[in-house]
Amino acid sequence: MSGNTLGKLFAVTNFGESHGPAIGCVIDGCPPGMALSAADIQPELDRRRPGTSKFVTQRNEADQVEILSGVYQGQTTGTPICLLIRNTDQRSKDYGDIAQSFRPGHADYTYWRKFGVRDPRGGGRSSARLTAPTVAAGAVARKWLHERHGTIFRGCMTHVGELAIGFESWDHVPNNPFFAPVADVSAIEDYMNALRKAGDSCGARLRVTAQRMPVGLGEPIYDRLDAGIAHAMMGLNAVKGVEIGDGFASVAHKGSQHGDSLRPGGTFESNHDGGVLGGISSGQDLEVALAIKPTSSILVPRQSVDTLGQSVELITKGRHDPCVGIRATPIAEALLALVVMDHALRHRAQCAGVPVPAGFDRAVS
Amino acid sequence: MSGNTLGKLFAVTNFGESHGPAIGCVIDGCPPGMALSAADIQPELDRRRPGTSKFVTQRNEADQVEILSGVYQGQTTGTPICLLIRNTDQRSKDYGDIAQSFRPGHADYTYWRKFGVRDPRGGGRSSARLTAPTVAAGAVARKWLHERHGTIFRGCMTHVGELAIGFESWDHVPNNPFFAPVADVSAIEDYMNALRKAGDSCGARLRVTAQRMPVGLGEPIYDRLDAGIAHAMMGLNAVKGVEIGDGFASVAHKGSQHGDSLRPGGTFESNHDGGVLGGISSGQDLEVALAIKPTSSILVPRQSVDTLGQSVELITKGRHDPCVGIRATPIAEALLALVVMDHALRHRAQCAGVPVPAGFDRAVS
Amino acid sequence: MSGNTLGKLFAVTNFGESHGPAIGCVIDGCPPGMALSAADIQPELDRRRPGTSKFVTQRNEADQVEILSGVYQGQTTGTPICLLIRNTDQRSKDYGDIAQSFRPGHADYTYWRKFGVRDPRGGGRSSARLTAPTVAAGAVARKWLHERHGTIFRGCMTHVGELAIGFESWDHVPNNPFFAPVADVSAIEDYMNALRKAGDSCGARLRVTAQRMPVGLGEPIYDRLDAGIAHAMMGLNAVKGVEIGDGFASVAHKGSQHGDSLRPGGTFESNHDGGVLGGISSGQDLEVALAIKPTSSILVPRQSVDTLGQSVELITKGRHDPCVGIRATPIAEALLALVVMDHALRHRAQCAGVPVPAGFDRAVS
Amino acid sequence: MSGNTLGKLFAVTNFGESHGPAIGCVIDGCPPGMALSAADIQPELDRRRPGTSKFVTQRNEADQVEILSGVYQGQTTGTPICLLIRNTDQRSKDYGDIAQSFRPGHADYTYWRKFGVRDPRGGGRSSARLTAPTVAAGAVARKWLHERHGTIFRGCMTHVGELAIGFESWDHVPNNPFFAPVADVSAIEDYMNALRKAGDSCGARLRVTAQRMPVGLGEPIYDRLDAGIAHAMMGLNAVKGVEIGDGFASVAHKGSQHGDSLRPGGTFESNHDGGVLGGISSGQDLEVALAIKPTSSILVPRQSVDTLGQSVELITKGRHDPCVGIRATPIAEALLALVVMDHALRHRAQCAGVPVPAGFDRAVS
Repeated sequence: MSGNTLGKLFAVTNFGESHGPAIGCVIDGCPPGMALSAADIQPELDRRRPGTSKFVTQRNEADQVEILSGVYQGQTTGTPICLLIRNTDQRSKDYGDIAQSFRPGHADYTYWRKFGVRDPRGGGRSSARLTAPTVAAGAVARKWLHERHGTIFRGCMTHVGELAIGFESWDHVPNNPFFAPVADVSAIEDYMNALRKAGDSCGARLRVTAQRMPVGLGEPIYDRLDAGIAHAMMGLNAVKGVEIGDGFASVAHKGSQHGDSLRPGGTFESNHDGGVLGGISSGQDLEVALAIKPTSSILVPRQSVDTLGQSVELITKGRHDPCVGIRATPIAEALLALVVMDHALRHRAQCAGVPVPAGFDRAVS
Repeated sequence: MSGNTLGKLFAVTNFGESHGPAIGCVIDGCPPGMALSAADIQPELDRRRPGTSKFVTQRNEADQVEILSGVYQGQTTGTPICLLIRNTDQRSKDYGDIAQSFRPGHADYTYWRKFGVRDPRGGGRSSARLTAPTVAAGAVARKWLHERHGTIFRGCMTHVGELAIGFESWDHVPNNPFFAPVADVSAIEDYMNALRKAGDSCGARLRVTAQRMPVGLGEPIYDRLDAGIAHAMMGLNAVKGVEIGDGFASVAHKGSQHGDSLRPGGTFESNHDGGVLGGISSGQDLEVALAIKPTSSILVPRQSVDTLGQSVELITKGRHDPCVGIRATPIAEALLALVVMDHALRHRAQCAGVPVPAGFDRAVS
Repeated sequence: MSGNTLGKLFAVTNFGESHGPAIGCVIDGCPPGMALSAADIQPELDRRRPGTSKFVTQRNEADQVEILSGVYQGQTTGTPICLLIRNTDQRSKDYGDIAQSFRPGHADYTYWRKFGVRDPRGGGRSSARLTAPTVAAGAVARKWLHERHGTIFRGCMTHVGELAIGFESWDHVPNNPFFAPVADVSAIEDYMNALRKAGDSCGARLRVTAQRMPVGLGEPIYDRLDAGIAHAMMGLNAVKGVEIGDGFASVAHKGSQHGDSLRPGGTFESNHDGGVLGGISSGQDLEVALAIKPTSSILVPRQSVDTLGQSVELITKGRHDPCVGIRATPIAEALLALVVMDHALRHRAQCAGVPVPAGFDRAVS
Repeated sequence: MSGNTLGKLFAVTNFGESHGPAIGCVIDGCPPGMALSAADIQPELDRRRPGTSKFVTQRNEADQVEILSGVYQGQTTGTPICLLIRNTDQRSKDYGDIAQSFRPGHADYTYWRKFGVRDPRGGGRSSARLTAPTVAAGAVARKWLHERHGTIFRGCMTHVGELAIGFESWDHVPNNPFFAPVADVSAIEDYMNALRKAGDSCGARLRVTAQRMPVGLGEPIYDRLDAGIAHAMMGLNAVKGVEIGDGFASVAHKGSQHGDSLRPGGTFESNHDGGVLGGISSGQDLEVALAIKPTSSILVPRQSVDTLGQSVELITKGRHDPCVGIRATPIAEALLALVVMDHALRHRAQCAGVPVPAGFDRAVS
C-alpha cells in the first residue's frame, strides 16, 4: 500500500521524480469559496527553490506552479486542486556512475531492494525535489488557516552542524540564505565554505512554530496532533529526530516544574508542552524541533557495494546541497501547516458546534 | 474524524475509558492460520500491569484478556479479533476533586475544550490505562513477525529523570521493575524513593529496538517507516520526543562520518541511521529513542483554573505513576511491533514477489 | 486488507462470529453531547431479533446490547462507543455435517478458499447474525440524524418470492412479522407456510427510504451518496441488486420524462432520481430498492463438493430463515442511516459554513 | 471529506473539470516491474472518446494521455503514476445560458447547494468527461490483471431505451458504435435517429463481465467484492441500478433453484450468483448489469428554477450525448477492473501464502 498521500481530509497526493517531466500534487478536500491563484503559492516555492545561493544545490529550477483544476473564477470550488511543476534543468548524465551502486546513507539501496527497480536519475522518487509539491500544498493550507483562524507558521535554523546559531528575531530569517534568526550570518558562511571545500556535508537543527492556534485540534488516542506532526516531520528527507515543546529536555524535568499552569481565560504560565496536551492543541503556540542528518551525496570517497553485491568505492558528483537542512525550513513550515489543516477539518467533522465555554477566550497566549 | 485506529492493514481500533466497565480493541487484518490464544497475549499485559511494584501506581488490575472473536480451534481465521479487558479496580471517588478543574500539563483541559464534555474518572479516555489494549494487540503482531521473519522487539529505560542508567545487557531488563538494562538498580530505587517522598514526578528516556528486520518495509514519500514509528511513539501518553538512529546527535555529524557504509551481502559497517534509509527498512536493527515527560498528576500544589475559568490551587490525589516512563517500555515495544506489522502487510500488498537479488542475504547485521 | 469497518468519519468496526462468545461493534467518530443509553438501541435490535415469529429462524437470542464505552452520565463523549451483544443460544452441533462440505450459494466455499480456514459454526463470520451490530450502530446514527435534521428512515417488504405485496401505508409495517405495508398479510402467510413445508427458501424485494434529508450530502466523483448506499446495501448478506429512484425502469425512460423539474424554493415536481443528483442529496426523499436472493440453507438435497474436492449430496439442517428478506428491513434501514450519517460528517468537514442560499429552504418536499 | 479517490491499495485520485486546462489522475499503489507505456492506455481512451460517431457528443477531444511519473525505462517503479490528458476543444460559451439555472435531473443544482460555488462550463466537475482518467487508470489495472491472472474484462449494451438488443457474440461489440453484441445494428440506429430528431435522450442497460477471475477476492463483512462493484458502478454518472448475477430476478427464485451447485475441482453448474459468494469471488465470471438513466441535457423545454429560486423554462444547447449509456461500456469495464485490482492487492496483503487446496484448480468455469 503506497503512502504518497498526506492527510485524511485535506489529502495531498504527491507524484513525480526528480528528473521526470514534471512533479506535482493533488489536494483533495480543500474547502470551497477561498480565493486562490498561483500567486498565492509561488512565493513559498521560491523560498524553497534551489540555485538561490552558493550554499545550496546549483540545479536551476524555476519551480513555476500551474493550477490545473479545482479553481474557478479565482475561487476554490471544493473539487481537487492539481498543482503541476514542470522539471526543466535535469542533467541525468551526472548519475550514470551511481546507477549501479549505492550511496552510504542514501535511499538508493532500500528503494532498489523494496521495488526491485528504481529510477536513479537525481535520486528519482527519493529526491528532496519532491518536497516542492508539499510546499505548494502547504501554501494553500496556510492561506486557509490564516484567513479562518489567523494562524501563522514560522521556522528557522537553530544549528548548522556543531554550530549553534541562537535566536535574535524572526525578522532576520528572510534576510539570509540560511533561514537563520540572527543579523550576522558570517560565522555560518565561514562554516559552510569550509564544508564545501572539504567536499563534505553537515546536519542541522530547525525550529518550526505555529502561532494563534485554534484550541481542540487532534484526535486521540492514536491520531493525536503531536503524533501527526511527528509523522509529517520524520517523513521529511533526512530528518532523524522530532521534539514537541521541551522534547528530550523533559526527561530531566520534575512534574512540579514541567506542567504549564493555566491562568483565567485559558492562557498559560509557560509552554513546556509546546502547545499540545493529551494530543490536542491547547491554543498555545506549537513548538517543534527537527534534527536533520548530513546529506549522503558527498565528494569524500566511501565504501559501498553495487547491484551485484560487490565492493565499490564511491564518490557522488552531481549537484547537491551540502546541508539539506538549509532549504528545509519552508518545507517544515508547510508540513506543519498541512498537519494543522487536516486536523482542523477532522475536528469540525466530529465537533462542529461545540461552543467556546464562557470565561475562556478562543484567542490565547 | 476520530483517530482511535492505529494501522491501515493491521488496523487496531481501541476503545474504553479508565473507569468504564471495560477496555479493549479490535484487530482487523490479522493474517489467517496463526496459532493464537490468550496465553500468547497475557505475558505482555503482565509486563505493563499496574500494581506490580511500589514505584508504579497501586491500582490493582488483573488485566485478564479475553478473545471474543477471530480465533477458531486455536487459529486466527482472518476475521476481526476483539480483545476485551474488564476494569475491576475503579475508585472514581478519588477524582471528585478534579472533575471541575484542570491539572497543569494534563489532557483534562484539552479534552474538555475539544468535546465540550469529558469523563473525568481516572482521566477517562486520556488515561495511560488505554495503552493496555495496544500492548495486547502488539503481542499478536509480535507473534506473527517472529514466526514469519524472526523479528524480535526489545526495550529498556536508559534515563530516569536526570539519572543516566547505562547499558549492560538486555538480560537484566526482566529482573527489575524499571526495565533497566543493568544488574544493580539501587541508584534508581533511591532516586524514585526520594521522588515519591517529595510527592513529585519525573521524566524518562527509553530505547526500543527491533532485531532481524525484513528489508524493504516503509511507504515513502509520506508513509515512511520512520514516519510511522514517530507517529506511534509521539502518540503515546507523555512522549515529547522521538529519535531514529543517532537522532539529534546527527545534527553535529559530517556526511563522511554519518553514512553507514555497505558491505557485500547487504550488511553495514555501522548503524547511524537506525535501520531506516529513505523511509524504508535496510535490514539493520531499528533503533528508536523516546523522551517521556513527568506525570502531571502530583501532590505538589499547582496553580490552575476550573471550568468557569476561575483560578484554583490544585493537588492530585488518587493512584498515579510517579514516572510513567517506567511502565512505558512494553508499550513502546508493542507500538514498534504494530508499526512494523502494518508495514509488512503494506509492503506485500504492492511488492509481493519482488525477489531478493543474488548476492544479497535477507538476513542482516 | 480486511474490510470490517463501514464509514470513514462515523466508522463502525464490526466483530464476532455466529457461535462465538459475543458479537459487537465499535463506533468511532460519534459527535459528543448526544444523550444515549441502551434503551435507544434495544428497540431496533428487537425489530431484527430472531425467533419472533414462526416465519424466521427459531434461534432464540435476547440480543441485549451493552454499552462498554464512549458514554458518560448518559451523554456521548466523542470517544469510541463499543456495543457488545453476548451470544447465548448457540447449537454448534447442528453444523457438524457441513463443516467439511459447502452449501451451494453459500459463503462456506469462498471463505475457505480465501482464508484457508473457517469457523463453520452457524456460518461463522458470514452469518446474517453479524448484522445485529450494524443495526445497533444504525440506531445511534438514526438518533443523531433525527435530532439534528429531523431525518427519518423507513423500510418495508414489497415482494416476497414471486408475490407482489403492494403499498397501503407505513402504518401497517410494525403490525405484522413481514414488515409488509399492508393490512392483510394472509397471502404472505400462506406463501411462507407452503415454502416451509417444501423445505425451500425464497427471495424478497425491499424498499428503504429516508425522509427529510439534508441537502448537499455526497462526495463525488467517486464517493457519491448513491455509491455509498449501493456499497452498503450490496454488502448486506444475500443482496443481489440495488436501485436508486426509478432504478432499472429508468432504462426505458426519455430524458423529457425522467428529469425531476425544480420548483421555486428547491422542491421538485417528481422524484425519479430518488433524492440524489450527481451523487449529492437533493433534499428529496432517498428511495432505495433491494433484491434479496433465497437463503442457501435449505432442506432440499443439493449437489456439492467437500474440502477434498469430492462430490457430496447436501441438505442443511439447523435453524434458518426461509426468507432472509423478512428480517432484512430494519438492517437495510440501519445501513441507509449509517451511510447518511457518515456523509453528513464528511460534508461538514469540507463544507461547514456554506450558507443556504436566499430563496431556498432547507426543508424540502 | 472529498471522495475523489477510488480504491484503497490501488488508489486512483481523479482531478480536473470539463473545460479546465487538463484532466487526469494519480495511481498510487501499482506494483513495480510491469511494462507500461502510453500505448497500453490510449486504445481504451479511444474506445471512450467523444466525437467518434453521430450518435454521441460532437465534442472533438484527442484524449491523448501523457505519463508524467512512475515509469522508468518502460517499467512501473512502484511510485505514483500521474496520467495527464489536456482538454483541447472547450466551448464554454455554450454554457452561458445555464450558468444561473439548473437542468432538471442534473448535478447543477446539488453541486451549487453543496459547495456554494460551481464551475458551470460543460458541467464542470460533474461532467462525464471525468470518466476519461478512470478509463486510463483502468487500462493499467487491466494489464496487470491480465498478465498476472489472465483476467479479461468485457462489456456490451443490452438495452437502449425500451429496445432490447439481445446477445449474439462478443465479437460484434467492437464493430459498431453502440458496443452492441449483435451483427445488425440498424434497429438501434433508427431508434437513435428518431431520438435525436425529437431533441430527447434515453436510458440504457449494460452488461459487464470479468472472465478468468482469481478465487478469494473480497473483504467481508462490509468491503465485499460485490459491495465494491456496486459502489464503483453506482458512482458512474447517470447509473441508477446495479445487479450482480441474476440481480432482481433472484427475488422470485427458490433456494433450490438459485444456489449454484459445486462440481469437483471447484467449478459450478450454473452462475446465478454472478461470481460472488458471501462477498468473495468464487472463480466464476463476474456478471454485472447497470441501469443508466437518460441524459438530462436535452433540447425539449423543461421547467426549473434559477439561483434566485425563481421559475425558468430551460433547454440545453451545447454538445451532449443523447444516450450516455453508449459510451459507458468501456468506462464500466474500467471500473470493474479497478475494483478487482484493488481487491487483488487487498487480498494478498492479508492472505498471501494461503495455498490452493489439493483437488481444487485455480482455473475455473
